[in-house]
Amino acid sequence: MDSKEVIQQNRDYTLFSWSVQSQANPIHIAGGKGAYFFDGDGNHWLDFSSQLININVGHQHPKVLEAIKKQVDELCFAAPAFASKPRGELGKRLAEVTGLAKSFFTLGGSEANENAMKIARLVTGRDKIITRYRSYHGATMGSMTASGDPRRWPVEPGIPGIVRVFDPYCYRCPFGKQPDWCHRECVSHIEEVIQMEGPHTIAAIMVEGITGSNGLLVPPDDYYPKLRALCDKYGILLIDDEVMSGFGRTGTYLATQHYGIKPDIVTCAKGLTSGYMPLGAVIVSDRIAQHFENTMLWGGLTYSSHPVSCAAAIANLDVYEEERIFDNVNSLGHHLGQRLEAMKEKFACVGDVRYIGLFSVLELVKNKETREPLAPFNGSSPEMQKLAAYLKSKHIYAFVRFNMVWVCPPLVISQEDLDKGLDVYEEALALVDEMIQAPAAD
Amino acid sequence: MDSKEVIQQNRDYTLFSWSVQSQANPIHIAGGKGAYFFDGDGNHWLDFSSQLININVGHQHPKVLEAIKKQVDELCFAAPAFASKPRGELGKRLAEVTGLAKSFFTLGGSEANENAMKIARLVTGRDKIITRYRSYHGATMGSMTASGDPRRWPVEPGIPGIVRVFDPYCYRCPFGKQPDWCHRECVSHIEEVIQMEGPHTIAAIMVEGITGSNGLLVPPDDYYPKLRALCDKYGILLIDDEVMSGFGRTGTYLATQHYGIKPDIVTCAKGLTSGYMPLGAVIVSDRIAQHFENTMLWGGLTYSSHPVSCAAAIANLDVYEEERIFDNVNSLGHHLGQRLEAMKEKFACVGDVRYIGLFSVLELVKNKETREPLAPFNGSSPEMQKLAAYLKSKHIYAFVRFNMVWVCPPLVISQEDLDKGLDVYEEALALVDEMIQAPAAD
Repeated sequence: MDSKEVIQQNRDYTLFSWSVQSQANPIHIAGGKGAYFFDGDGNHWLDFSSQLININVGHQHPKVLEAIKKQVDELCFAAPAFASKPRGELGKRLAEVTGLAKSFFTLGGSEANENAMKIARLVTGRDKIITRYRSYHGATMGSMTASGDPRRWPVEPGIPGIVRVFDPYCYRCPFGKQPDWCHRECVSHIEEVIQMEGPHTIAAIMVEGITGSNGLLVPPDDYYPKLRALCDKYGILLIDDEVMSGFGRTGTYLATQHYGIKPDIVTCAKGLTSGYMPLGAVIVSDRIAQHFENTMLWGGLTYSSHPVSCAAAIANLDVYEEERIFDNVNSLGHHLGQRLEAMKEKFACVGDVRYIGLFSVLELVKNKETREPLAPFNGSSPEMQKLAAYLKSKHIYAFVRFNMVWVCPPLVISQEDLDKGLDVYEEALALVDEMIQAPAAD
Repeated sequence: MDSKEVIQQNRDYTLFSWSVQSQANPIHIAGGKGAYFFDGDGNHWLDFSSQLININVGHQHPKVLEAIKKQVDELCFAAPAFASKPRGELGKRLAEVTGLAKSFFTLGGSEANENAMKIARLVTGRDKIITRYRSYHGATMGSMTASGDPRRWPVEPGIPGIVRVFDPYCYRCPFGKQPDWCHRECVSHIEEVIQMEGPHTIAAIMVEGITGSNGLLVPPDDYYPKLRALCDKYGILLIDDEVMSGFGRTGTYLATQHYGIKPDIVTCAKGLTSGYMPLGAVIVSDRIAQHFENTMLWGGLTYSSHPVSCAAAIANLDVYEEERIFDNVNSLGHHLGQRLEAMKEKFACVGDVRYIGLFSVLELVKNKETREPLAPFNGSSPEMQKLAAYLKSKHIYAFVRFNMVWVCPPLVISQEDLDKGLDVYEEALALVDEMIQAPAAD
């Protein structure tokens, strides 16, 4: 079966997510290695999006493949009521790297966030959850409602009890401030919302460690300490959604570890197994774990604590540690930051760059002064389409959305490959500059 | 690490689903083969619950293990925007066995049902979903609200738009009828509900093919044709949740195939891969697939169409067909039915037995005349606990809930093993009979 036939069969018999089916234009993926994947025609693509920002250890890492196959031979399935070796070991490892107590295993980020919200409500006896507008927490009814992302619009109304607040989006501060002359209104307005909603009604504040697909918003350094203090003041739990930002993406296990705070609940997926096997986790503090010693945890799913998924996660943790992957992230992250700042200097269309570790975005504008976006919120533009098409034509796989383009390669990438990809980004940005500068030249 | 240590580590670092943690009493599962699994102390347990009624091909089937390892070596992950060989092939196979058109892949039953509801709403432009009281559709906010199961109580309110109706529960007919002298009020009252709710507001009726964990309710033969006609009359979609009842459990791919009707949407998981890899699917009719050709499908998840999960499902389909597993289900199912009927004759405590294929339950009562349940709805009793403890002491792993005990072994079980397990059930029922008859003897 050649690639054309594989693609046709996929189109004929399967539905593509977040797509108008007739417009879906899938690449046939046939294999991969490290920072590259291979299509069915033998082309090597540099994966600057780590698939869906998940394949942190890179494609087809031999240690992870071996660990999976070993577990498959030993015990391929166990119902969630059973104890198994990989389940216990992974629980212990996750407690060690997060400083929290116990894990509840799911299959992905959506279910992890669903269960985190459920747990927060059960523990506090309160109903409301505060989330942020620029956020994505998953696609099931609860996690989709918790998201601010426009993908929730067509399926609303969702669950009751979600209250949304604004983001630490310094480039376009909702309060009209700049980080060096503000009073962190991005936190203080949350306190006003808490007061208006009634502090005793709010179970949790749920935030992405670093906002991912809604703009890669790196908060000011004192944002998290202030948010933690706010939670403590009102007895509100802090749920830290590390699905995208966790497990080395920013150079630490949890992005919030950069800021010296500890959440009450962490949710994770993606980099937990690099997607090699489906797995998510809700990791809770000792206080929360204790709560469920004598009261029912009302949640479960057939594949919770799947032994092969747990084994894949343990192998990922081994790779992160044995191969000192986070050191690579921190040193390459520094280099990436420098190159992004240079692009901002060089190109008229680059309004802002935001980065931490190997988690970064370029935000593109029509005009640096006015900051007019190169594409509207929840839309696209000929310029953004041109950029995306150029990257694709050079076999760079990148995540492009609205007026932004991300740089999130596998954490095992070499500096040479990183630079190679960034050079192609520069060529694409030059094309965009030509487009936006052309009318002024007329 | 011995079993005691494995269990302790699981308890120390992980949370058990649907449990008061201090009361969780897990078995350490270390391996398995066919209808048996092995605990860490070397005991062989006869798995009369197929784990969570999912391990249809039995434990550690070599063909499935090989297919998984082969796919792991070839391509372990692909983002959902990509076409892959196993994805296309599985889509085609599922269209063939269900008579429907296209599959959208999820990770489990909860997400499959979430997406089925979303799809029904997007296609019809209507909001409400009719579901049944005695049902379980999953634990995420949408699928939990859709469930009638008491597990939804502690996390309500859920999503808006769910309307619940009564079940085809002939042994305790909500309309006070018997199947041979009723007018199928279990369907006609749904029409009355439709009229009261407004037919133009109802997107779908969602039902389990055969109700599983809420009592294994086998409907009268004309229930589905009548329900299908009702849906057609009002332009309502029929969502058939085959998560538990599908993929050979009843001797066919879909339980509804016994009744000669075709649903608009099928959801499945469990037997689709036998749990070897996490996978769920929403399989839609051609009409629904066509709808999304030119309009957005608003749903997705990182691990959708996971190549290893798809490969595991293809291997399961191969095993079902090459080993003629459904023939075994049909012939052993006949034998099982005879033995269950004989138990109903023999034991005072057996009020009703319900069965189809290798999907069956015994409903226990204090008194056959009054039909008083041996344990209350959503509760237990010393008699039920005695029964459960006896089965466990004989290393029979069984699903016991409220006043019911299920018989749902792997579909590859031999008649000898089936009889061996049923003999132990008989010993347990004799103990229960002693308990309920003792007071009368005083």
